[in-house]
Amino acid sequence: MDGTSEILEQAIEQLAKLPGTGRKSARRIALYLLKQNEDDVMKLANALISLKKSITRCSTCGVISDGDPCSICENAKRHTGQICVVEESQDVFLIEKTNEFRGRYHVLGGVISPLDNIGPDDVRINQLMQRVNDENEQLEEVILALNPDSEGEATSYYINKLLKPYEKIKVTRIAYGIPMGTELEFIDEATLGRAFASRNTF
Amino acid sequence: MDGTSEILEQAIEQLAKLPGTGRKSARRIALYLLKQNEDDVMKLANALISLKKSITRCSTCGVISDGDPCSICENAKRHTGQICVVEESQDVFLIEKTNEFRGRYHVLGGVISPLDNIGPDDVRINQLMQRVNDENEQLEEVILALNPDSEGEATSYYINKLLKPYEKIKVTRIAYGIPMGTELEFIDEATLGRAFASRNTF
Repeated sequence: MDGTSEILEQAIEQLAKLPGTGRKSARRIALYLLKQNEDDVMKLANALISLKKSITRCSTCGVISDGDPCSICENAKRHTGQICVVEESQDVFLIEKTNEFRGRYHVLGGVISPLDNIGPDDVRINQLMQRVNDENEQLEEVILALNPDSEGEATSYYINKLLKPYEKIKVTRIAYGIPMGTELEFIDEATLGRAFASRNTF
Repeated sequence: MDGTSEILEQAIEQLAKLPGTGRKSARRIALYLLKQNEDDVMKLANALISLKKSITRCSTCGVISDGDPCSICENAKRHTGQICVVEESQDVFLIEKTNEFRGRYHVLGGVISPLDNIGPDDVRINQLMQRVNDENEQLEEVILALNPDSEGEATSYYINKLLKPYEKIKVTRIAYGIPMGTELEFIDEATLGRAFASRNTF
């Protein structure tokens, strides 16, 4: 076809692969970038390159991090008696924002999902148990903070079973219930049921 | 804050500048890229870099292009008697897709907009008149295909006035009316009015 730029088409094709970006928004982004000055485009490109090249994972907790160990595992002020188990690194960032938790984390990098052929050995459960063995002396609590879907539930049960033999370690789970700021009529039955079952003394 | 990656934050910040991308989608894209292999991320980054470094503009018609002249101006099979005036390069690509037009283009790179301090000299109207003078012998028609907003209208009128002295050149405008595949009840009054005023013999 006349009047198309191969270079432009390639950029659109690459951008269209990003999540939430179809060909139309990819085209819009490409044409937007064409109008920006070279410095700004280079800043974006370099940020993406270092994202992949410079970022690493903490070899202890598995969170994505600029260094190994990560700033959380390295921080002597964090409680060493608590490990919070999460699915992905972004969950760590979210929980950190709440300022509710001062212990350390363990990122599984996924959950057990037989339908997707993901077994216990495909997520970082062995590494968790290794840590539990190594830190057995000081460890008081393992907090499970997985997503409340069937895979997350199954994985929580599995980890709970593995931790049973460690009698000194309390296994807890974050509360699932009514989200703050909503009205009851908008809540689904499963959540409402769970909220009832998990009710506390006022 | 503990547990944030500077590198990740920088990538999110850069991505969040893109049109249609807020911080949430920027974070989602960054975490998605982290999971991709290095090759794919490099392909994206390089596509963005060459977008800015290798792409050029046709010095005749002003369209963004891999080479100068662009493939349209260079194509000896295109009608040299027609020039279609558009606002931006993407309009050229859109019109090319229709296969309705086999002439050549002129990209203004904007429209006259006194409120934004954009005068006739800030868009490529002088270059258009230069072309009209140079190609006076062969030129039969200038087709105005600007957006149907007040700035587009004003720019169309302005160009039409400049072209008045060239009696041999017909100045036309693409038809504005009811879009295909819609129902009349969903059409705004301005469009419907325009469609009536521009009615054709059936």
